[in-house]
Amino acid sequence: MDFLTGKTEKKTLDISEILLGDYEGEEVRINGAIHKIRDMGDMAFIVLRKREGLVQTVYEEGLTNISIKDLHEEDTVEVSGVVAKEERAPQGFEIRLREVKVLSQPTEAMPIAVNKWKLNTSLEAKLDYRPLTLRNVRERAKFRIQEGIVRGFRDFLQQKGFTEIHSPKIGARGAEGGANLFRLEYFHKHAVLAQSPQFYKQMMVGVFDRVFEAAPVFRAEKHNTKRHLNEYTSLDFEMGYIDSFQDIMEMETGFLQYTMKLLEKDYEKELQLLGVTLPKTDRIPQVRFDEAKKLVAEKYDHVIRNPYDLEPEEEVLIGRYFKEEMDADFVFVTHYPSKKRPFYAMDDPDDATFTLSFDLLFHGLEITTGGQRIHDYQMLTDKLAERGMTDEGMEQYMMIFKHGMPPHGGLGIGLERLTMKLLGEDNVRETTLFPRDINRLEP
Amino acid sequence: MDFLTGKTEKKTLDISEILLGDYEGEEVRINGAIHKIRDMGDMAFIVLRKREGLVQTVYEEGLTNISIKDLHEEDTVEVSGVVAKEERAPQGFEIRLREVKVLSQPTEAMPIAVNKWKLNTSLEAKLDYRPLTLRNVRERAKFRIQEGIVRGFRDFLQQKGFTEIHSPKIGARGAEGGANLFRLEYFHKHAVLAQSPQFYKQMMVGVFDRVFEAAPVFRAEKHNTKRHLNEYTSLDFEMGYIDSFQDIMEMETGFLQYTMKLLEKDYEKELQLLGVTLPKTDRIPQVRFDEAKKLVAEKYDHVIRNPYDLEPEEEVLIGRYFKEEMDADFVFVTHYPSKKRPFYAMDDPDDATFTLSFDLLFHGLEITTGGQRIHDYQMLTDKLAERGMTDEGMEQYMMIFKHGMPPHGGLGIGLERLTMKLLGEDNVRETTLFPRDINRLEP
Repeated sequence: MDFLTGKTEKKTLDISEILLGDYEGEEVRINGAIHKIRDMGDMAFIVLRKREGLVQTVYEEGLTNISIKDLHEEDTVEVSGVVAKEERAPQGFEIRLREVKVLSQPTEAMPIAVNKWKLNTSLEAKLDYRPLTLRNVRERAKFRIQEGIVRGFRDFLQQKGFTEIHSPKIGARGAEGGANLFRLEYFHKHAVLAQSPQFYKQMMVGVFDRVFEAAPVFRAEKHNTKRHLNEYTSLDFEMGYIDSFQDIMEMETGFLQYTMKLLEKDYEKELQLLGVTLPKTDRIPQVRFDEAKKLVAEKYDHVIRNPYDLEPEEEVLIGRYFKEEMDADFVFVTHYPSKKRPFYAMDDPDDATFTLSFDLLFHGLEITTGGQRIHDYQMLTDKLAERGMTDEGMEQYMMIFKHGMPPHGGLGIGLERLTMKLLGEDNVRETTLFPRDINRLEP
Repeated sequence: MDFLTGKTEKKTLDISEILLGDYEGEEVRINGAIHKIRDMGDMAFIVLRKREGLVQTVYEEGLTNISIKDLHEEDTVEVSGVVAKEERAPQGFEIRLREVKVLSQPTEAMPIAVNKWKLNTSLEAKLDYRPLTLRNVRERAKFRIQEGIVRGFRDFLQQKGFTEIHSPKIGARGAEGGANLFRLEYFHKHAVLAQSPQFYKQMMVGVFDRVFEAAPVFRAEKHNTKRHLNEYTSLDFEMGYIDSFQDIMEMETGFLQYTMKLLEKDYEKELQLLGVTLPKTDRIPQVRFDEAKKLVAEKYDHVIRNPYDLEPEEEVLIGRYFKEEMDADFVFVTHYPSKKRPFYAMDDPDDATFTLSFDLLFHGLEITTGGQRIHDYQMLTDKLAERGMTDEGMEQYMMIFKHGMPPHGGLGIGLERLTMKLLGEDNVRETTLFPRDINRLEP
């Protein structure tokens, strides 16, 4: 009988192992994809692409066991060779090849040169060939940084006593009313895809006090802009026993601070590759919605057309204002008008025209919506009635308020938007692995 | 201008802070929901429910600022009082109440007594009232342990050089063919919900060598059994540059070992609450599919009806066999017949009737399916042709093989099933936060 013991003998080394160890002059074994071949006649530079970066290897006729003619870009190989210091190589070392074993070979040449520094192609082509174009080292670096953001979100909240949940994505109805829902047939019943884990997060505050989820959400919005997706990853949290909705903004600020440190520490290489300067998160200004509108109207001669909503241009101007006036990358805009917020938003007791809510703008783009929720059953019932709504189909949500809920609130962060702004991209599709929009269902 | 700095002054303490600090005789402030009131006349025990557990507080008429008549179960409160050692209290201490501030009150009494040790109710009622019944400390403990499993999965794989990805859940077609797909209208196009991130994981192996995802998958199976869900959380990974499909099983074994240690360390309280003994993961036996069938047929006088598939009863018998013969909780069953595996499964070069694949059984239930995938374009094209399939609609998936892929493989683990077996439950709905099955879309 054979057993698995969780211990495998590794024959091959990672880049970081070679960098950390004392391998100069030693023979090592590594694997990777042939990213680029520069054939100089009787010698060649063969650059391998590995998860951690590029490695320069040197082929020399007679010393290497294979003919350079048998090697191609995008072959995958396992090689052995001797490590030598080489300042001009990507990692500060190169490997002088002795043996090359070809693991697989492509059947066709690449339609797009992924081994260039920048992909000189349209966004459309980049997305059509996404499985290939992501092999470009700068393209893939974006998604390493995205991983870091999600790690930061989870690690920080876990330290703060939050529990991770997995709420269902198929449901009988949506959290924000009937609009913008994808509908599906569910065994002869009508079902919808979740726009948000809102109701479930709140239910779970009654169970775990503080919860979070990082999962897909689905919005059937017909917008086709640079900042909209029909499916995206939402970083959601919800916390009970708050003293004020300020607690939620403080928690988000803490998350941003923690995550920027994590990126600096563990994703330095990728930040360098992309030339990213991390934003300042040590202190984030907050401004009331009505105040923000006035400030930018005055400073930039902007005409306020809709006093109840922020137009995208106004968000851009608010971002610009706070950058110019106090060198701020982020700004919390608070007290959104009640009529633009969902029924469960807590109205400001001082003026019920407004809510105890906020958006977080990052360089002029909304990346978060959050706020305090109503926790009192009667208040929630009254608010529903005011809006001409009933609790039909929401009985199990209303149940939690009937049976006691602490004061609470939370937020949702659009992961792809946050990544986009962090990397200075101007289209959210650039920082979405496989985007879904009104025209795109593939790949 | 006000700023957020990420630093909030905390007024209230968590249970672990009181346990770690030297608070005996000191006045502390905590919050929570009133889980239970035991009124003894001029004094009462008021048990608070917090994320970390239950805390006993003592109300004494005259000493506490409020009348016991104004307090109810499921009120949420913030209290202050003096910490006193008390061996019989859940945490080894109690708090003698001075001030109680009621934060919220329920409008109705609980329909189910969630403050009992065990909920004496049917599974159906438990699920109908899920937002409330999860407030029971044993019910919620299951989902703390579930969190721990997901943490273990991510942390372990991150250490092993895997990158986390977020693949789309809406797509133009499924990974496993046309069956069991939920269909939806996507802006006048036909779309389906992802059964698995299979194709995307493989695409991303060409990019990051090793990737993982923990996300929902959707299966429109009409099964209505104790082990089937129509939406579940799949823990998926896929790794490149494998020497054999044994590498995948070793990685899973490593994950299980790591996770059991993490649970022991960080989720000890919950394991105790539920009386869970963790399974043995130090060495996991492996057995060939055909061999396993023979072994149990002989030992248990079982008649093999279908030589190409394992019936659920056979899985149970295999689990029993390996428990009895070698005290094993897990067993890898390898070399499943090719005809029962998807087209992308790598056939065994020694006998193409079988594949280089496996299931992992945990106490007789399949919790993982995995294996090596075909990485050669020609081999994949031939296999499609053999099955009478075409690559129509899969062009972008086929693209990666045309342009070079390393030998690779991976697996998918059903999170709720793994949790169920770990906790000794016999219905997967017990360990699913809000289950979706053929009859259940709510809550």
